[in-house]
Amino acid sequence: MIRILFLTIGIFCFIFTNAQPRKRARDYGVKIGVLPTGTYNAITDVKGVQVGHTTIHRDNVHTGVTAILPHDGNIFQQKVPAAVYIGNGFGKLAGTTQVTELGNLETPIILTNTLNVSTAMDAVIDYTLQQPGNEKVQSVNAVVGETNDGGLSDIRARAVTKADVLQTIKQADTGTVAEGNIGAGSGTVCFGFKGGIGTASRKLPQASGSYTVGVLVQSNFGGVLQIDGVPVGEELKQFYLSDQLKDSGDGSCMIIVATDAPLDARNLERLAKRAFMGLARTGGIASNGSGDYVIAFSTMESLRIPHTSSGKTHTTTLLLNDEMSPLFMAAIEATEEAIINSLFKAETLQGKDQRTVKALPIEEVLDILKKHNAIK
Amino acid sequence: MIRILFLTIGIFCFIFTNAQPRKRARDYGVKIGVLPTGTYNAITDVKGVQVGHTTIHRDNVHTGVTAILPHDGNIFQQKVPAAVYIGNGFGKLAGTTQVTELGNLETPIILTNTLNVSTAMDAVIDYTLQQPGNEKVQSVNAVVGETNDGGLSDIRARAVTKADVLQTIKQADTGTVAEGNIGAGSGTVCFGFKGGIGTASRKLPQASGSYTVGVLVQSNFGGVLQIDGVPVGEELKQFYLSDQLKDSGDGSCMIIVATDAPLDARNLERLAKRAFMGLARTGGIASNGSGDYVIAFSTMESLRIPHTSSGKTHTTTLLLNDEMSPLFMAAIEATEEAIINSLFKAETLQGKDQRTVKALPIEEVLDILKKHNAIK
Amino acid sequence: MIRILFLTIGIFCFIFTNAQPRKRARDYGVKIGVLPTGTYNAITDVKGVQVGHTTIHRDNVHTGVTAILPHDGNIFQQKVPAAVYIGNGFGKLAGTTQVTELGNLETPIILTNTLNVSTAMDAVIDYTLQQPGNEKVQSVNAVVGETNDGGLSDIRARAVTKADVLQTIKQADTGTVAEGNIGAGSGTVCFGFKGGIGTASRKLPQASGSYTVGVLVQSNFGGVLQIDGVPVGEELKQFYLSDQLKDSGDGSCMIIVATDAPLDARNLERLAKRAFMGLARTGGIASNGSGDYVIAFSTMESLRIPHTSSGKTHTTTLLLNDEMSPLFMAAIEATEEAIINSLFKAETLQGKDQRTVKALPIEEVLDILKKHNAIK
Amino acid sequence: MIRILFLTIGIFCFIFTNAQPRKRARDYGVKIGVLPTGTYNAITDVKGVQVGHTTIHRDNVHTGVTAILPHDGNIFQQKVPAAVYIGNGFGKLAGTTQVTELGNLETPIILTNTLNVSTAMDAVIDYTLQQPGNEKVQSVNAVVGETNDGGLSDIRARAVTKADVLQTIKQADTGTVAEGNIGAGSGTVCFGFKGGIGTASRKLPQASGSYTVGVLVQSNFGGVLQIDGVPVGEELKQFYLSDQLKDSGDGSCMIIVATDAPLDARNLERLAKRAFMGLARTGGIASNGSGDYVIAFSTMESLRIPHTSSGKTHTTTLLLNDEMSPLFMAAIEATEEAIINSLFKAETLQGKDQRTVKALPIEEVLDILKKHNAIK
Repeated sequence: MIRILFLTIGIFCFIFTNAQPRKRARDYGVKIGVLPTGTYNAITDVKGVQVGHTTIHRDNVHTGVTAILPHDGNIFQQKVPAAVYIGNGFGKLAGTTQVTELGNLETPIILTNTLNVSTAMDAVIDYTLQQPGNEKVQSVNAVVGETNDGGLSDIRARAVTKADVLQTIKQADTGTVAEGNIGAGSGTVCFGFKGGIGTASRKLPQASGSYTVGVLVQSNFGGVLQIDGVPVGEELKQFYLSDQLKDSGDGSCMIIVATDAPLDARNLERLAKRAFMGLARTGGIASNGSGDYVIAFSTMESLRIPHTSSGKTHTTTLLLNDEMSPLFMAAIEATEEAIINSLFKAETLQGKDQRTVKALPIEEVLDILKKHNAIK
Repeated sequence: MIRILFLTIGIFCFIFTNAQPRKRARDYGVKIGVLPTGTYNAITDVKGVQVGHTTIHRDNVHTGVTAILPHDGNIFQQKVPAAVYIGNGFGKLAGTTQVTELGNLETPIILTNTLNVSTAMDAVIDYTLQQPGNEKVQSVNAVVGETNDGGLSDIRARAVTKADVLQTIKQADTGTVAEGNIGAGSGTVCFGFKGGIGTASRKLPQASGSYTVGVLVQSNFGGVLQIDGVPVGEELKQFYLSDQLKDSGDGSCMIIVATDAPLDARNLERLAKRAFMGLARTGGIASNGSGDYVIAFSTMESLRIPHTSSGKTHTTTLLLNDEMSPLFMAAIEATEEAIINSLFKAETLQGKDQRTVKALPIEEVLDILKKHNAIK
Repeated sequence: MIRILFLTIGIFCFIFTNAQPRKRARDYGVKIGVLPTGTYNAITDVKGVQVGHTTIHRDNVHTGVTAILPHDGNIFQQKVPAAVYIGNGFGKLAGTTQVTELGNLETPIILTNTLNVSTAMDAVIDYTLQQPGNEKVQSVNAVVGETNDGGLSDIRARAVTKADVLQTIKQADTGTVAEGNIGAGSGTVCFGFKGGIGTASRKLPQASGSYTVGVLVQSNFGGVLQIDGVPVGEELKQFYLSDQLKDSGDGSCMIIVATDAPLDARNLERLAKRAFMGLARTGGIASNGSGDYVIAFSTMESLRIPHTSSGKTHTTTLLLNDEMSPLFMAAIEATEEAIINSLFKAETLQGKDQRTVKALPIEEVLDILKKHNAIK
Repeated sequence: MIRILFLTIGIFCFIFTNAQPRKRARDYGVKIGVLPTGTYNAITDVKGVQVGHTTIHRDNVHTGVTAILPHDGNIFQQKVPAAVYIGNGFGKLAGTTQVTELGNLETPIILTNTLNVSTAMDAVIDYTLQQPGNEKVQSVNAVVGETNDGGLSDIRARAVTKADVLQTIKQADTGTVAEGNIGAGSGTVCFGFKGGIGTASRKLPQASGSYTVGVLVQSNFGGVLQIDGVPVGEELKQFYLSDQLKDSGDGSCMIIVATDAPLDARNLERLAKRAFMGLARTGGIASNGSGDYVIAFSTMESLRIPHTSSGKTHTTTLLLNDEMSPLFMAAIEATEEAIINSLFKAETLQGKDQRTVKALPIEEVLDILKKHNAIK
C-alpha cells in the first residue's frame, strides 16, 4: 500500500515539476538513420510484443522494473527463437547460457537494478510455475538483465519486490511505450545525464521483406555523447576523460531487440551484435565496468518452439543469410535512436543523498544540433 | 527450528538405515588414473578451499545447498582468477558472463536445485553486502549453479531459504568433505542410480610443479556408466537407450575445479574444459537436457585481484602454456573420480511420492570390477 | 612420376612386411559402446559421403592427404549445414570462422600435415574456381585441417603438392574407407604408437529416427590409452607422465562427423562437441600442444543451402532439441571407435632419420583385453 | 622482373594522374574523437611496429599485400600477446584458433585478397622456417587476413605470389605508413568509394598511463558513410539501401590494433572488440557478406613469450581491468580515423573490365563537413 502511494506521488511529481513535457528525439526533427520507423517507433511495432513498467521512488530509492514479453500467450509453452550477444560482460544478466544452448527464450525478459536480479528471477519462476498449463514444469530459465542505478538510488536497499515484478509482467501491454525515468530506467545515468528507458523501431522496405525491428534500451553508460553524429558531449564539455569528468564513462546498457523476421538463433545472434554497433554510434565506449548485453528474439509465430511436441521435427521457413543486411542496418539505427530517446525523455532526478543528475538540456542540445545542421 | 529438526532426523535416518557405511571408490581398491591423490582426495586438498553443506529432507522435499569458498578471507575484496566452461548450457548457472569478461570470481560458489538459484543469489548478495569491509559495495556477481533434483524432490516447493544458504557459507570448512546425499546432492540421480556430491584430487609430481588440482561435483546426469573403464552400466543392464531405460540419460552436472597452480583466466578455462573430459570418461553423454558446467579457479595468493588498488598494474607469475598438460590430466582424473565417488557414497533414497532411486549396488559393482580385473 | 613410383613401393612394403594384415577393432571382438554400427562402420555409412586418400612415402617424408566430401555434387553451389567445435586450438584448421558465422560448408574438407595447410587451401580454391558452374565465384572458404607428423616425416620439406590434393579430391569415393598409415594419417603418432586414419559409424534405433552418424579421425595425440575402457596404456607401461615417457602426450586430432539427421548449425556444433567426448574416452587429454578440432555436417538434402537463390527464405525440417541425445551418444561412440580403429590398422613405420614408431602390438593388446574381460 | 616493372609503372601513374596529392583527414581539419594522436598518427606510433606494402597493378589485376610486424626480432621465438575479435566471420582469416587458444602471435600479420590467403600463408611459413634460429621449427601459425577486391581486380587470377609476400615482410619499416590504394588496399572499395589502407593512433594522457594505441585497416565495406559524425553518405546520396544503391553494403574490413600497454590476451580481446565499435561509427553495418576481424597485440617487451624457456613460469606486469576504459576509447577513435584516412587517401581507380570506382570527392566532402560545422 505504502509503496503504491509513494509510487503515485512519484508520478505526480514528474507531471508537476515539468511544465513542458519532454518529447522524443524525432519530435524535435532529429532523424537518425535512413530507414523509416514503425507506427509507434517502439519495440511494440513488432506485433505481439508487450512492455510493462513499475517505477519505485521512495526515500533514497529510485529504481524499478521493466518487462518485455514476446507474445501474449504462455511463453514457456510457446518458446521463441532467441540469442544473446555480450558487448561487455561486467553484468549479471541471468539465463544467457540456456538461451544460447537451446536457441530460445521461455520467459518474459525482465530488466531491473543490479542487486535485484535474484528478486526478479524469483518472480519469473513463480510466474511461470503458476501459469495455467505449467503445472508440471520443474525447470524455468528466467532471463533477467540489469544496470546499476546505485549512483542515484540506494541500491543496497534492494527495494524491488517479487510483487513489483509480477505486477510489471501483468500490466505489460502493446502500443505506446513510456520512456525516460520509468521502470528499470528510473535511476539510470547515461553520458553523465539522466538516462532511462528508450525505444525505437525500423521497418524495412518491401523489397527487403517489410520486416520490423524494434529495440528497447535501459541506458546507463558513458563515453562521448553523439546525437545523430553531432558531438553534443564535446560541445557541452561533458564526456569521458574530459577535464570536468562529469561522466565516469562507466555503467551499462541492456538492449532488447525484437523482430518479426523469420530468424533462427544463429541469425538472431548476428542481429544482436549489430545493436551493439548502434550503441557505439551514440558515443558509448563499453567501458570496463559496463554490462552491455543484447537479447534478440523473433516473434514469427511459425517459429515458436512448443515445450512439448508430439513429433520429433519442426518445419520452419527461415530467412537466408544473404537477406540479413537490411535487418542489420535496422537494428543499428533503432538501437541508436532508442538510446537517444532515453536521454530526451528522461527528466532531471534528485536522487539519494541529494545527488542530482540533470536531464539532457534539450534547448541547448537543439541549438547544437542546429549549429551542426542536423536539424533545421 | 522445524527445519533444523527435520534435518537432524534426516541425518539420523542415514546413519541407522545403513549398517555398513558406504565407502569411497578408492577404499574398495578402485584406482582411477595414474596420478596420486592429495591428502583428503578432495577439493580441499587445494589449500584454503572450504566446503559447506546444508541438507534438507522434509516431506516431499529432498534437496540442499553446497558452498565452495576459494579462501577464508573476504572474497569480494580479494577476488581469485576464474573461468567457466560450458559443456552443455541447458542450465541456470548465474554469474558466468562476468567471470568470463573479468576473469575472476568475487563470491563463494553455491550449488543448489534449479528453482532455488535465485534464492541462493539473493543470499550471496546479502552475504557480500554485509561482510565487513564491503559497506560501499553496490554490485555483486553471485555465482550459483544447480542441477534439477525434481525427480526425487518436490522442486516446485522451492524449499531452500536464504538462511539455508547463509548457514552453508558460514559452516564451510577445510578438511574432509562429506559426499553422497548431502547438500546440493541430496536429491540428485546419476546414471539412474542415486547421485550426489563427490570429490577427488590429484597432486602433480615435483617435476611438474607439485601443484594440486581438486574437484567437487554435483552429479545428476546419465549415459552408460563406466567405472574406471569397466562397463558397469551395461553389465547391470541400466543405461541410456537400453530396453529397461531406467536411465533417461538426462540431467546435469556441476563441476568445480580448484588449483593452487598459478593460472590466469585463459588457462583456467582450458583446465575447466578438461574436467568435462573427465565426465565423458564416466559414460556421461551431456544429453540435450543437461546443464554441464565447470567453474575453475586458482587459489594462488599472489594472483588475487584486490577490489580496489592503489596502483594501475599488478605483477604476477604465471605458468607457461607448455606446462599445462599435467594439470589437464589431473583435472580429467579428479573429475572422473569425483563423479564415481558421488555414486559410491550416495545412499538409496525414497523421495517424493514414494519414488525410490537405488544407490549404486556396491557388492554387485565390486563383482563386476573384479570380473574385469579392475580391482582384485 | 617418381612420386607415384615411391607411393607404389610404399604400399607394396606394407603388404610384404605384414604377413597377417591388421584388422579393425571390431574384427577382434572389441565392441565399443551400445549402439549398432552402419554397414561399413565408416563415415561413408552416411549416404553420399566420399573419402579419398593420397599417401606419400619418399625419402624422409611420410605424409599425405585425406579428403572428405559431403556429397558428390558441386559443394560450393549446394552448401551443407556445418559447425566446428574446438577442443584445443593449438592447430591451423583453416576456414573455421566462416563455417561458424554462416553455418555452412562450401568445399571438401581436406586433412594433411601442419605445414601443408596452405598448399591444400590453394588446391581447394583452384578446385572450386574451376568446377563447372563456379565461373563467377570470387570467394572460397577452404576448410583444411591438419596434425603434425613431424616426428616421423620431414615436415619442413612441405612435400604435399597441389596436385596431390586435387587428385585426392578426385578419387574420393563412397564405400569402404582405408585406415591406418594412409592419407593424412601416414606419419601420425597416437599414444606413442603409430596412429593414422580411423573411421566408424553408429545407426540409431528406429524409435530415435534411424539416423546415421559417421566419424573419421586423423589420430596424432597422447594421454593414457584406454581401449573400450581397458587401461592398455598402463598395462603396456606407455603413457603420458609414465617413467618411460614414450608418449609425450602431445599432438592433435582432427575429427570429422557426418550425419544424415536434419540438424542446423547450432545442433551440429553440439554434436561436434560430443565427438570430443569420444576422444576423452580413449584416454586423450587434449594436451597443450594439441590441435583438437571437430567439424560436423549434415548431408540431409533438403537442408542444402544453394549459393544463389531466387527466393529470400528456405523452408527446412529440423530435428527438435529434445531428440538430440541419441545422436550425441552415437557421436561419442563412433569417435571413440574411429580412434581405436586408427590404432589397430596403423602399421609400424620407420620414418625420418631411422626413427621408428611401433604399431599397437595387437597380440599383447588382445591378451590385455581378455584379461579385463573386454573380449573373450 | 616484369612484375616489378608494372609495379613501378603503377606507382608512377598515381603520381602523375593526381596533380594535387590527397591528404589525410586531419590535414583538412577533421578531428575525430577527443584524444590526441601519436607522432605519425599511425600504427607505427606503437614503438617497434613495422608496416610494409607491395602493390600490384597489372592488366586486370589491382591487388597487393600489406604486412604488419609487432617487432623487428624473430617473432616466432619472441611471440607477443594477442587476440582476435570476430565482428562478422564471412572471411578467411587464417590462424585465429591458435591465437585465441594460446593468447599469442608468432608471425607477421599479412593482409591480402581473399583468394591469395593460402599464398600468403605459404610465404609466412617459408619465412619462419628459414629465419635464423628457427631451424628446428615444425609448426607455424601464419596469421593472414583478407578482404575481397574482386570488384576492381581479377581476383580469380590469384596474382599475388609468395615472392610478393616475402618482399613485403622484408621491406616493412617503422615511421610513416603509406595509405590508400596501396598494398592490400590496392583494389578495395568502401562505402561505394575507393577504399584502401588507412591508419591512425591515439596517445593516452599521463594519468591514464601514456600508452599508445595504433590501428591499421584494410577498408572494403559498406553502409551509410559518416565522417566525424557527419552524414556524408546521405548528403552524397550514396549509401546502402539508397535508390542509387551504388553501395552494396557488402565487403569486409580487416583491423589491426597495436598497443604498448601491458595487456594479456583477455584484455587484448576486449580492446579488439572496441575497434569494431570504431567501424560502427563510420557507418559500417557489418553486412552479411562482410569479413570483419580485429587482431590486437601488445608490444610490451616484458610480455613477450619465448618459444623455448628454461623456466616453467613467467613473471609479468599487467594492466588492471579497471584501467582499460581509456584504451577502449583510444581503440575506437583510432579505428574510426584509420577508416576515414583510407577513404581520404585512396585514389579513383579504373579497375578490371573498365569498371571505375571513384575516390571520395574531397572537395564536396569538405563542403559537407563545413555545412555541418565539423570543420571550419
